Amino acid sequence: MDLRAEFRRWKAQRLSKADLSRKGSVDEDVVDLVRLLNAREQFFTTSSCAGRILLLDGGINGFEVQKQNCCWLLVTHKPCVKEDVMAALKKASGDAVLKFEPLVLHVQCRQLQDAQLLHAVAVDSGFRNSGITVGKKGKTILAVRSTHGLEVPLSHKGKLMVTEEYIDFLLNTANQKLEENKKRIERFYSCLQHALARETMTESHPKIREKDSPACSKKARNTAKAQDTHVPEESEKEIENDGDDDLGISVTLFPEDY
Amino acid sequence: MDLRAEFRRWKAQRLSKADLSRKGSVDEDVVDLVRLLNAREQFFTTSSCAGRILLLDGGINGFEVQKQNCCWLLVTHKPCVKEDVMAALKKASGDAVLKFEPLVLHVQCRQLQDAQLLHAVAVDSGFRNSGITVGKKGKTILAVRSTHGLEVPLSHKGKLMVTEEYIDFLLNTANQKLEENKKRIERFYSCLQHALARETMTESHPKIREKDSPACSKKARNTAKAQDTHVPEESEKEIENDGDDDLGISVTLFPEDY
Repeated sequence: MDLRAEFRRWKAQRLSKADLSRKGSVDEDVVDLVRLLNAREQFFTTSSCAGRILLLDGGINGFEVQKQNCCWLLVTHKPCVKEDVMAALKKASGDAVLKFEPLVLHVQCRQLQDAQLLHAVAVDSGFRNSGITVGKKGKTILAVRSTHGLEVPLSHKGKLMVTEEYIDFLLNTANQKLEENKKRIERFYSCLQHALARETMTESHPKIREKDSPACSKKARNTAKAQDTHVPEESEKEIENDGDDDLGISVTLFPEDY
Repeated sequence: MDLRAEFRRWKAQRLSKADLSRKGSVDEDVVDLVRLLNAREQFFTTSSCAGRILLLDGGINGFEVQKQNCCWLLVTHKPCVKEDVMAALKKASGDAVLKFEPLVLHVQCRQLQDAQLLHAVAVDSGFRNSGITVGKKGKTILAVRSTHGLEVPLSHKGKLMVTEEYIDFLLNTANQKLEENKKRIERFYSCLQHALARETMTESHPKIREKDSPACSKKARNTAKAQDTHVPEESEKEIENDGDDDLGISVTLFPEDY
């Protein structure tokens, strides 16, 4: 079976399966992006989480406990108020931790070059911890990840270690990150539309070169960077040094006035 | 110029350059790993941070401020005590945030298959957010990343929002994560040695197949997973469903008694 046919078979198989997540459906904020990807023959999504605020009751000292034993006290994809967290914390008996987790999206790609395009778009949209996985049999998956998280221990052995005022302040930060995450998803959607349109155009008119189009990816990337203080300096340096010329993240994605 | 020669040239160029990080040298905990990689002709490291606890004085509400304006009040690669943080916090005038950042390592690889091998080893050692970047000209880099962080807002407009007791508790958690990160680096080093020895052996004796060797990567992976509650469920599912057969993370890396 040739690569295209095999990919089509995988895609059909995957998209026909039931959604096995706890929620059982794709998160609202990421539905358009998931649809856009699945409508293209070279992509299909294998998992997604739009971003969420969650309160976990871990075992004592967090990471010593198996994930399956870790209890979710609260999960929300929407901004969250102090009262919700205070009520959920009453059920905590171990070390409760509040987290903000940004978008995580896994996309299977037909060929490495499809993953490269998507990777470039993801990084330019602010999802700078994205990366490709290539399996032994050539299965190619792009994981879209952000550096933009939050992880805050709140209680120890069931005892609250912070004040209500702090939780209020913390949720303000978490809600802002949720909002910024939503903007990045919208930016990703818009960038992807442009990149796919450009790709289609280049395929039908191979003489159109990238540099003839308005260049604005660098601007977009810098906007995303400016709002992000999370990546270690070394990693930042890496992306800055090598990004523009060689890492495939210089595709032009935005109109000048974005 | 052929691929091997070009890669050799890149490597020589990179390794002859001065270390441009603030610290100016490779972190102690990662020196052996960096040496092991740079001693192999198919790899060279382009940046590394072994893992650290840091206190940043961000602008108000953290991510609104450019990275270059964000002030480092404290950085340490060693366990940290409350007194250090309390002293550093006195200099905070904006929104101070305490972070634990695990290992980040960027490794340029000669070919995609070299990156695949390294990726498999990284994931099996617990660095589950690792991913490959392939540039337009084929430059292939593996970023080794963990899910194992911590990010805690401590003050707002210079005002401390938590108690000293909380900072003590928080540092206990951060120090444990630093310790666990160190174990993962050691596991990565050991796994990599095995994988490279196996690769060399397979090259000289192509009949030796993986399944003839003691299989223990799954065990190692599960150990790493059990200590990690950070990855969103969907992403976890993805790795679990596809990992063993297709994502190249079933290479056998550990001796049975690891």
